[in-house]
Amino acid sequence: MEIREKILANLSAVKEKSPLIHHITNYVTVNDCANIVLALGGSPVMADDLEEVAEMVGFASALVLNIGTLNSRTIESMLVAGLRAKELGIPVILDPVGVGATKLRTNTAEKLIRELKPEVVRGNMSEIMVLAGQNVAIKGVDSIADEQGSSFIAKRFASELSCVIAITGKTDVVSDGRQVCLLDNGHRILADVTGTGCMTTSLVGTFCGVTKDYFTASIAGIISMGMAGEIAQATLRHGEGIGTFRARLLDSIYNLTPEILARDGKISYE
Amino acid sequence: MEIREKILANLSAVKEKSPLIHHITNYVTVNDCANIVLALGGSPVMADDLEEVAEMVGFASALVLNIGTLNSRTIESMLVAGLRAKELGIPVILDPVGVGATKLRTNTAEKLIRELKPEVVRGNMSEIMVLAGQNVAIKGVDSIADEQGSSFIAKRFASELSCVIAITGKTDVVSDGRQVCLLDNGHRILADVTGTGCMTTSLVGTFCGVTKDYFTASIAGIISMGMAGEIAQATLRHGEGIGTFRARLLDSIYNLTPEILARDGKISYE
Amino acid sequence: MEIREKILANLSAVKEKSPLIHHITNYVTVNDCANIVLALGGSPVMADDLEEVAEMVGFASALVLNIGTLNSRTIESMLVAGLRAKELGIPVILDPVGVGATKLRTNTAEKLIRELKPEVVRGNMSEIMVLAGQNVAIKGVDSIADEQGSSFIAKRFASELSCVIAITGKTDVVSDGRQVCLLDNGHRILADVTGTGCMTTSLVGTFCGVTKDYFTASIAGIISMGMAGEIAQATLRHGEGIGTFRARLLDSIYNLTPEILARDGKISYE
Repeated sequence: MEIREKILANLSAVKEKSPLIHHITNYVTVNDCANIVLALGGSPVMADDLEEVAEMVGFASALVLNIGTLNSRTIESMLVAGLRAKELGIPVILDPVGVGATKLRTNTAEKLIRELKPEVVRGNMSEIMVLAGQNVAIKGVDSIADEQGSSFIAKRFASELSCVIAITGKTDVVSDGRQVCLLDNGHRILADVTGTGCMTTSLVGTFCGVTKDYFTASIAGIISMGMAGEIAQATLRHGEGIGTFRARLLDSIYNLTPEILARDGKISYE
Repeated sequence: MEIREKILANLSAVKEKSPLIHHITNYVTVNDCANIVLALGGSPVMADDLEEVAEMVGFASALVLNIGTLNSRTIESMLVAGLRAKELGIPVILDPVGVGATKLRTNTAEKLIRELKPEVVRGNMSEIMVLAGQNVAIKGVDSIADEQGSSFIAKRFASELSCVIAITGKTDVVSDGRQVCLLDNGHRILADVTGTGCMTTSLVGTFCGVTKDYFTASIAGIISMGMAGEIAQATLRHGEGIGTFRARLLDSIYNLTPEILARDGKISYE
Repeated sequence: MEIREKILANLSAVKEKSPLIHHITNYVTVNDCANIVLALGGSPVMADDLEEVAEMVGFASALVLNIGTLNSRTIESMLVAGLRAKELGIPVILDPVGVGATKLRTNTAEKLIRELKPEVVRGNMSEIMVLAGQNVAIKGVDSIADEQGSSFIAKRFASELSCVIAITGKTDVVSDGRQVCLLDNGHRILADVTGTGCMTTSLVGTFCGVTKDYFTASIAGIISMGMAGEIAQATLRHGEGIGTFRARLLDSIYNLTPEILARDGKISYE
């Protein structure tokens, strides 16, 4: 099946099955993540207490781990939920927010990768470079501008970890260690809103809830956000900005059809 | 006084007195809950630390407990705040989010009901069925589709607990153990946005802050959300969806007058 | 340099340098704070774990501490991050949300002031009066109506603490202990939305990230919010309210230019 057919089938499946997506995530963008999953057609559940995460993940079709505001309590919950997900064959999607900025983030992300072997890791270029062992200057959670070599890093790191690596930026790069896919949807205003990275990971997680083809699921999640960003930005009138854009972004995901998603994705292979 | 007169008087009282509504709630929808209370005319305060909740609830006119992202720290705070509220005669409104999904949620909700004897419990059909001891298949925090028997369960459970039970769904059911009221406002898009259940509970809590008639307060809170949902949905144009809808939902609560609320509620008795 | 020239230069610097603003803040309005910093041109980072805050603040240009939903874990993090910020010469901006309502809030705010000597404290009249040792009746986090004497209190308290005190209300008052500035931008609808106070503090923090003149930075932050509130309110049509207003508030900050900010600020000196 060609990639566009698969993407069409994936979004149809999300809307039909409404997969439950368990998140252990940060308190900054958690509401946006819940709403973007709902907008796509999935069903979000956020639960982070050690005493319930193993039980909750048992109902889920995918587990999204996001270290945006990690703390000792939630790190432990991520490990327990993740190990239970692996036992049950539920995919784990990791968003290593701000990795490299502090030892806690770097150690935690490395531990989650080592112990859970996530099916997908999605980050910006600087985050993935840190995880891939590259030297890189980090400034908070910002991504570095230089995207050269991202294909090379994505492919090598995906191969090393036997997972899908998704690097989002001006051009997004997704690799499963063999194939490398370049995605060119999106608009720069997405970087002016908090949580667009987290939301992209939640969309990827939602697609991973309906297919074992995590490479296609990652592509579908990333182009969904990119296309929604384009559509939302095009509606802005004079005087409007990121407040209105955020609402329209949810609107655009809500109105995205399988046909439009499959048709308008700017997908190329290296 | 007829129900519509009471509802009119209740919303007038909210706007005049601006009751302080103390919430111990989840971090997913907490911002929406605060804004919906403000939109109605109340004054929200969110505080969950064990060292301050007993003191804070003393200033409040109602206490809303929502177990959406419960953890050991906040469960203890809910109990302490709740016991202090009961001592002071302040009504306790419980939202047992996701009860039945995990033992932690079920045990916590049951403990809160047993120890605090809340004045109102609001949930969807599956949540209330779990609490009422019915066998029911739970999938995360989703509500089950079958609403048959909800009147029967609401009335019996309300009678057993000597409280108001509110079951929200396509048709909402409210009972104080003697009367059963059916409410038919609302729109199905409300289920596509996270937090509409939590916000409904916060509206109920706000009305409970101005009257001892918790049956009417529950009806007023639920029809407020239902009517706001109808109004907000009717404004949506082509290309708009849940992002714009969320903003309009707050707008609609903000512009709801006592007269409109009393007039347009679709209220019937069994 | 005249105040308007300084304000113009400050906003230009924010847009050029995109200062990283580390927040340890409440989970109610944290998303709004992150987005308002982005809208102005800054770069927010929210991190509160004891094991990473000292390291994270080292990358930051300012540290915003907000006690809206404080707990024992985050209070400790605030102290550690604050002490590290002082060592590094990074300004600390304190928002003592709800101080006076509970002993925990009062003790914490006093401790943070005593141990960290923040560069700016921004609160409403009742909060600042509590900290300044005035007797005042508190009702939750609401501000008292009477603003008489706010100039006197701001100046005296700023002088005592050797910092900038900003009291926001109908007329905002900012003092560094010598000068007292009165600000008259804003609209009363701002009080109907949760987080407008927190967001104002985040804007002040963002300006403090590009200048050592914290008096001007505080003025710039407060008039930014006031002007955005005016612009956003003026766009509201029949049926719109705080939901649409919130989105337009972010839009208005996003579209604020240094020239407009410097020109339209209603600034006077006592």
